[in-house]
Amino acid sequence: MSKQSDITKRFLLSAKHQEIQALQHLSSNCRTVKAVKDMIHQLQRERGLSNVFLGSKGDRFGGQRQQQITASEACEQDLRSLLKSLYLGQHDNGQSMRLLSSITFALQGMDHLPDLRNKIAAQQLTPLESTNAYCRLITGLLDVVFEAADVASDPTMTRLLVALFNFMQGKEYAGQERAWGAIGFAESHFDSDLGDRVSALSDAQQHCFETFENFADEEEMQMWQLQQSSDTATQITRLRGMIQSLASGGECSAELSEIWYDIATQRIDAMQSIEEHLTDRLTDQATLRIQQAEEELRNHEMLIASLNNSPPLTDTPITMLYDNTVKGLKGAGREANKLPEGSALSAHKSFYDLIRGQAQRIEDMADELSAARQALNEQKVIDRAKLLLMQQGGLSEQQAYRKLQSSAMEQNMRLSDLAQRVVSRVG
Amino acid sequence: MSKQSDITKRFLLSAKHQEIQALQHLSSNCRTVKAVKDMIHQLQRERGLSNVFLGSKGDRFGGQRQQQITASEACEQDLRSLLKSLYLGQHDNGQSMRLLSSITFALQGMDHLPDLRNKIAAQQLTPLESTNAYCRLITGLLDVVFEAADVASDPTMTRLLVALFNFMQGKEYAGQERAWGAIGFAESHFDSDLGDRVSALSDAQQHCFETFENFADEEEMQMWQLQQSSDTATQITRLRGMIQSLASGGECSAELSEIWYDIATQRIDAMQSIEEHLTDRLTDQATLRIQQAEEELRNHEMLIASLNNSPPLTDTPITMLYDNTVKGLKGAGREANKLPEGSALSAHKSFYDLIRGQAQRIEDMADELSAARQALNEQKVIDRAKLLLMQQGGLSEQQAYRKLQSSAMEQNMRLSDLAQRVVSRVG
Repeated sequence: MSKQSDITKRFLLSAKHQEIQALQHLSSNCRTVKAVKDMIHQLQRERGLSNVFLGSKGDRFGGQRQQQITASEACEQDLRSLLKSLYLGQHDNGQSMRLLSSITFALQGMDHLPDLRNKIAAQQLTPLESTNAYCRLITGLLDVVFEAADVASDPTMTRLLVALFNFMQGKEYAGQERAWGAIGFAESHFDSDLGDRVSALSDAQQHCFETFENFADEEEMQMWQLQQSSDTATQITRLRGMIQSLASGGECSAELSEIWYDIATQRIDAMQSIEEHLTDRLTDQATLRIQQAEEELRNHEMLIASLNNSPPLTDTPITMLYDNTVKGLKGAGREANKLPEGSALSAHKSFYDLIRGQAQRIEDMADELSAARQALNEQKVIDRAKLLLMQQGGLSEQQAYRKLQSSAMEQNMRLSDLAQRVVSRVG
Repeated sequence: MSKQSDITKRFLLSAKHQEIQALQHLSSNCRTVKAVKDMIHQLQRERGLSNVFLGSKGDRFGGQRQQQITASEACEQDLRSLLKSLYLGQHDNGQSMRLLSSITFALQGMDHLPDLRNKIAAQQLTPLESTNAYCRLITGLLDVVFEAADVASDPTMTRLLVALFNFMQGKEYAGQERAWGAIGFAESHFDSDLGDRVSALSDAQQHCFETFENFADEEEMQMWQLQQSSDTATQITRLRGMIQSLASGGECSAELSEIWYDIATQRIDAMQSIEEHLTDRLTDQATLRIQQAEEELRNHEMLIASLNNSPPLTDTPITMLYDNTVKGLKGAGREANKLPEGSALSAHKSFYDLIRGQAQRIEDMADELSAARQALNEQKVIDRAKLLLMQQGGLSEQQAYRKLQSSAMEQNMRLSDLAQRVVSRVG
């Protein structure tokens, strides 16, 4: 009578070991994401203060800017120590090349923050140049969060990371909107170009927050709805309306600059609590999943020990070969997805149920993962399709975007599906 | 003046180390895929012979079947030794849980091959039951190839694996078509159900071979076109036509059974040469890519050594912070994709170019990988959507498929895009 071979049992355990290993990597990445989120928040504050400092020719926010630099530097030190301890300990850290590469790129920028700060202190940069430099670094740091989400193998944690990434991206667009608005109000007028930019950033935020809402839990949703109906939100909406009417001509008082900056800052600062909530949930979930998987490993080991001592009960072994729920000959029909009831209880049945259950779980996970990753990649794919059209057709960013939009309308497709097709044609 | 920190350099090297590590895992997986392909081929032969053996009540192919079992067993031993040496050597083998789990499931079936063979020898199974058992095991082994393709991180190798998986899947459908055809011819008639099954398998083959063609190189295409225009192909087409006209009523001579079996076997055996070609290319490519990456690592190390000895040349460091090709403030415009020309040649410029180039390469790779993975997953997603409709709507497989097809037509979408949407709604 045939029995399970030793190698089959060892592969079952090895798969579980690797699941635990992957969860531990994911847990490290969650710690990185939390530290990156803090760093980005400090940089967003520093960017805003530097902007006003440059715009006022050094008259305003000089002291606050210095204080902020001290805070940013402390945060950067924490991030660097964490990165070093998490990823540079062993030669083979088992992490993805893409994650490590995104960290390298962000570090490259951080290495040159002292130079950027010196140039700002010496008024050698325009507010726009300074803003752009901070934006590039923040984009680089957001990429680290993106990669952490993209390589995550646990569906629940991937969903959380997708919610967090989109929220952080939305918050960053809010910061960029504040910067353009500050520039316009400081110059006391908005041309239609500037008006377009501000409204493009407001649209981009909406898209990010919608995706966040699709993946957030109830508590975070309530926090977000509260912020959406706050006084600050009402005032932002009014100021946005003002910008759009100014963009069609007319001047405004330069004092509005300060009001805009304060309100926008209040809104951005409030967003921090939701980021905090999401990263706390991530950390908890990582701990929980590792505990679960370790518990499962212990159960597997016990089952295998008992399997070695108990002979099979029936003449027909319990195997995938005779399991009607397993896909076999096409057209022969199979029972959909139901695990086989079969035979009496035995260690052999439990062993087979385990293996079959794992295969089934992986198939189910694939659906959830692919839905979350699709949401994560949508914006990237649209951006890449836009860039392709710019390169190939010599179009501007706006023209490229409009071309994508109208093709999607014509072909009755979602924008992201069309973008995927544009991008795939290259591959 | 700010310089690159030590940690940035170490992360750059670490990313390259991990790329090499991932390529070595991929190279192991290619060896597995090659051994799995051989095992599947032996099982396909054994399935065919067992089928005729059972159909003839043990009169025919008894000796050939025994010989084939010996060959299958030798092949299985090779596969088992390889799997053991590749994946069970160290506790943390860095492989994906999904790949290891698919191997576990296939091993579970292989463990019970002796029982299956005993039952066939004792005529305890119908040809259909026996065929179905072999099909389940082969499906399990094909899943191993699928997972190896899905976790591959190198675009060229992913494309090769997608071509190979689809070709192997197509060959397996050809084997299943042979089985249904043999059953029909042996009974001297085909009902419309059986006719439908044979034509569904012919459609499925076409779909697989089309995907193979999209990812194959010229040499493999020529081999395939030669097979497509061979006498065997012409005869298969004629016999398929005969089956469809028999399905609308009418009897045929039982001798046709033998002719059908021989021709179908010739066709399937010929396909082996293309599989061989693809796996050889895979092995070569794996070796090449590892060599390249190791060479790159050495260059990186040399560059970093020279960087430590040469002071920056200019006042403005070469950094992503000031690089117009890096995405920064939305609406500020950026140069599309072109790497910065900037400044004089220096180790600092080379270092930055390296980091920037790597980030760019990863972005480009993402497009290629996503196109290949999409092609890989299309059929799986359609299968999953079908299964969902069967469970939720109590539909048969055929009804579920027709429902998907008609919804796709109505909404003017590709079948696989629609299936993705059906499946994602669950997540």
